Amino acid sequence: MKKLMDVGEFGFIKLISRLFLKKTGKPKIISGIGDDTAVIPFNRDNFLLLTTDMLLEDVHFKRSHPPYDIGHKALAVSISDIAAMGGIPRYALISVGLPKKLSLSFAKKIFEGIRRTARDYGIEVVGGDTNCSRKIVIASFVAGTVRKNNLVLRSRAKEGDYIFVTGTLGGAADKGKHLKFAPRLPEAQYLAGNFKLNSMIDISDGLLADLGHILSTSRAGALLWQDNIPLASKRENGIEKAYYAGEDFELLFTVPKRLAKKLLKSWPEKFKTKLSCIGQIKSGNFGLKAEDKNGVRKKLKAGGFRHF
Amino acid sequence: MKKLMDVGEFGFIKLISRLFLKKTGKPKIISGIGDDTAVIPFNRDNFLLLTTDMLLEDVHFKRSHPPYDIGHKALAVSISDIAAMGGIPRYALISVGLPKKLSLSFAKKIFEGIRRTARDYGIEVVGGDTNCSRKIVIASFVAGTVRKNNLVLRSRAKEGDYIFVTGTLGGAADKGKHLKFAPRLPEAQYLAGNFKLNSMIDISDGLLADLGHILSTSRAGALLWQDNIPLASKRENGIEKAYYAGEDFELLFTVPKRLAKKLLKSWPEKFKTKLSCIGQIKSGNFGLKAEDKNGVRKKLKAGGFRHF
Repeated sequence: MKKLMDVGEFGFIKLISRLFLKKTGKPKIISGIGDDTAVIPFNRDNFLLLTTDMLLEDVHFKRSHPPYDIGHKALAVSISDIAAMGGIPRYALISVGLPKKLSLSFAKKIFEGIRRTARDYGIEVVGGDTNCSRKIVIASFVAGTVRKNNLVLRSRAKEGDYIFVTGTLGGAADKGKHLKFAPRLPEAQYLAGNFKLNSMIDISDGLLADLGHILSTSRAGALLWQDNIPLASKRENGIEKAYYAGEDFELLFTVPKRLAKKLLKSWPEKFKTKLSCIGQIKSGNFGLKAEDKNGVRKKLKAGGFRHF
Repeated sequence: MKKLMDVGEFGFIKLISRLFLKKTGKPKIISGIGDDTAVIPFNRDNFLLLTTDMLLEDVHFKRSHPPYDIGHKALAVSISDIAAMGGIPRYALISVGLPKKLSLSFAKKIFEGIRRTARDYGIEVVGGDTNCSRKIVIASFVAGTVRKNNLVLRSRAKEGDYIFVTGTLGGAADKGKHLKFAPRLPEAQYLAGNFKLNSMIDISDGLLADLGHILSTSRAGALLWQDNIPLASKRENGIEKAYYAGEDFELLFTVPKRLAKKLLKSWPEKFKTKLSCIGQIKSGNFGLKAEDKNGVRKKLKAGGFRHF
């Protein structure tokens, strides 16, 4: 009997996506399953963005982690998704499963973490559901809006686009950044408001996996300039971690070549996070390759963290 | 050290609610935490409704239940919430945690159940999140709309209102109805569109618990006519089950006395589910009482199913 692990997470997602795309006919939505958020008609100037993420104890966090950070992360992952569409998060709902013997103080601190992050990012927490479970599980739902002009999908990368990434990659697990990361909302707002981005995604599954999502939905290839990739660690396997480790929650995006220089020059210092130009979009049959400083190219496989 | 079970589910919800109401200041929302769904400004004629529910293996369902029914229920509970506001469900997102050794066929059938229910109720499934977990967990998030004129809150019951309920109560656990129930969306649409309802809620925690939510938010009391309560079972403890057992997902609502007769007379046969007038809203200091056919009154305690 086939098990979930036999098809893997992305295989299962593809399978479910087909199920829903096949049967509901032509969707009224602008973009549904297969981007960071769903994009839905809202009003004259804005689309509505809807996204959900689930955090599970012993998968995404441990009971020994600070409950405050767990609450933060539960909301921050969804904020990061909204940001990657060029949007602004507005409302959140939180469903939790909590062990009945969990200390009240731990449970409260999870919600205090959620509350502070909601406040910091201008979000109203408007509802939720509480249940009893053996392990802690938190599902966040965030509704946001995006000005129609600012909407950035992952599927519109164009041959010749330069590929950019914010911050550094591969250090999420080492430094506990995966719990404390700041969603790149101001950066994404600046980018989507001032530049014509062709595609954007947040890096949750790893650089190659998420670049892979851009490439497969855009039917494109890419050449990465390996030495331009901003590594969190200079150690031997730093580049491997940057390629394959998940949960950096940095922005990965592509812009027309003619805008690249202006973008780099005008990047506001206030963001503190740096901006790196790490490669170029190629045609679909180019595949995915990395070039080192000597001009030697090698093929890469788009892949990253899978839950099963 | 205080544990969650020491304050109980409703105690914990109250505590979280205060946390969010206290710190976010005056909300722009019409109604947030403390109703079946959040109610948010949308466009000239409609509000946006947002709701979330989480289903957990061994709490809400067992692995031995049909996966199709599990998927159905995951969405149906949220549809029921939207219906109870007088609204129409539009979009859904589903976050799941699934064991990696779960059979692919079981996992697919959960989603087929979700898909069919989505189709039956005119909902587009537009996104989700998949994760690995030890036990199955499904969080649904549904966004709907409600015509401003049709919005029904739980907090506007008025003294003198007659109290109505659809269907029969207390049979959910016995007959597996808790997995297969049909959310009362057509009934709620008919009611909200044709009558001025003062309050409505869906019965998920039990008649007395959910009536208790109406009474406490409306600062009202109620007298129940015990022999009018539609019991799922005529057995000895039928009335106890109707009072305290959860998951009936029937509609509980109140209307001004002058509309009661018209409502009962014009109730469309096509609904098949029956409509019962079970009592009257009283002033807050009346409390909650039940009267039997001999006119004997006894005090009731508003309570019902708690997760912890």
